[in-house]
Amino acid sequence: MAYENIRIVLVNTSHPGNIGGVARAMKNMCLQDLVLVDPIAEFPSGKATARASGAVDILEQTRVVATLDEAIADCQWVVGASARLRTIPWPLLDARDCAVKAVAESESHRVAIVLGRENSGLTNEELEKCHHLVHIPANAEYSSLNIAAAAQVLAYEVHIAHLAQAGKAKLKIENDYPRINAQELEGLYQHFEQALMAIDFYDPDNPRQLMRRLRRLFNRAELDRMELNILRGILSAAEAAQKRR
Amino acid sequence: MAYENIRIVLVNTSHPGNIGGVARAMKNMCLQDLVLVDPIAEFPSGKATARASGAVDILEQTRVVATLDEAIADCQWVVGASARLRTIPWPLLDARDCAVKAVAESESHRVAIVLGRENSGLTNEELEKCHHLVHIPANAEYSSLNIAAAAQVLAYEVHIAHLAQAGKAKLKIENDYPRINAQELEGLYQHFEQALMAIDFYDPDNPRQLMRRLRRLFNRAELDRMELNILRGILSAAEAAQKRR
Repeated sequence: MAYENIRIVLVNTSHPGNIGGVARAMKNMCLQDLVLVDPIAEFPSGKATARASGAVDILEQTRVVATLDEAIADCQWVVGASARLRTIPWPLLDARDCAVKAVAESESHRVAIVLGRENSGLTNEELEKCHHLVHIPANAEYSSLNIAAAAQVLAYEVHIAHLAQAGKAKLKIENDYPRINAQELEGLYQHFEQALMAIDFYDPDNPRQLMRRLRRLFNRAELDRMELNILRGILSAAEAAQKRR
Repeated sequence: MAYENIRIVLVNTSHPGNIGGVARAMKNMCLQDLVLVDPIAEFPSGKATARASGAVDILEQTRVVATLDEAIADCQWVVGASARLRTIPWPLLDARDCAVKAVAESESHRVAIVLGRENSGLTNEELEKCHHLVHIPANAEYSSLNIAAAAQVLAYEVHIAHLAQAGKAKLKIENDYPRINAQELEGLYQHFEQALMAIDFYDPDNPRQLMRRLRRLFNRAELDRMELNILRGILSAAEAAQKRR
């Protein structure tokens, strides 16, 4: 487990106090890597600093980026906080199981835990970039946690999972090729779209659920570099077959 | 377990926003009984109401009393949040074990979880009124959680302990299509071989590891029927592109 390999990503956060609250929650639980995607709140801000209290150092290291893609590009495992994905089911973990997996992944990979807007969470498009969704069990009649409170619960579970696993011998699957990151995965989906259009399997004007289902499938599969190369090789061969006509 | 038998008690809280944050954390986790001991913050207050968000009903039912003794008078089990008791050792539980005991106690007793001042916590005199102290495992270098964050972690653990005790099923992924069987999977691999030969990506005389790697990938992915149909559709479209030459 490497705490420094677990990143918290906040998308379009509106309230500066929440950014400070998340920073404090992170530092309390030994996390340090905070990335803000296009914050609506002013940042840096006095309100964030006040709420961060003893975690001002986290805010000082916080990076601001324009897009979620940038925030997760170098991460091999991405998990998004969500009440539910409305259109199709997505692999789902509760907070405790998510933390256990995050700690295991962080041994050799970079992990991103993504939290969405205060009022509307993450969009479907954002959730589809995630390998898993994470759900904090809550009151069915009022299940929406404050974003800093959600970060606190998730960071707390990560810390507890780390304490539980520390020192324990771990069975590790030795992979012969490294796991791909979010940027490589996004490149694969662009290649899929392009190739499937070329062979007349995909019509962007009538997309139905095609790309979403492919994303769910290959996010879940946690591809390595060789598998990525094979899939892209197949797509290129299909495009070439079409062009030879 | 009776959620209504678990009370949160806040002593001398300074910031109205924290009172609202505690109320929201409680309602998110099905708790409802909040008592304020001699708050320093104005109460009721607009800041508390704003932070409470959808938990304003909790604030409306909140009682204000003058002393900790009044707040816990009718409780059979009282637990106080503390980093450590300075003068004498006291029975100590971590947050998870505290929640399990609180849920068990709440079957037949009234429970109070007491949280102290933002800057100085509970006094020794107050801690000595408690049956147990509860400690939230945290970063040794910065272990002081915001009071609403601490309430969130404790309330979350109570809710999880309740779910566990109620024997409720873990979070389940509802899949919209059934998982495919081994025969369907074998058919997919035959289709892969045939289509990849057609588009000149696979040479059976020089197979290398191609089919083995595809098998490892799609076995691991645990495909459903719709995903199978999509993959076979793509393979058929690639074959058709080739044939149109």
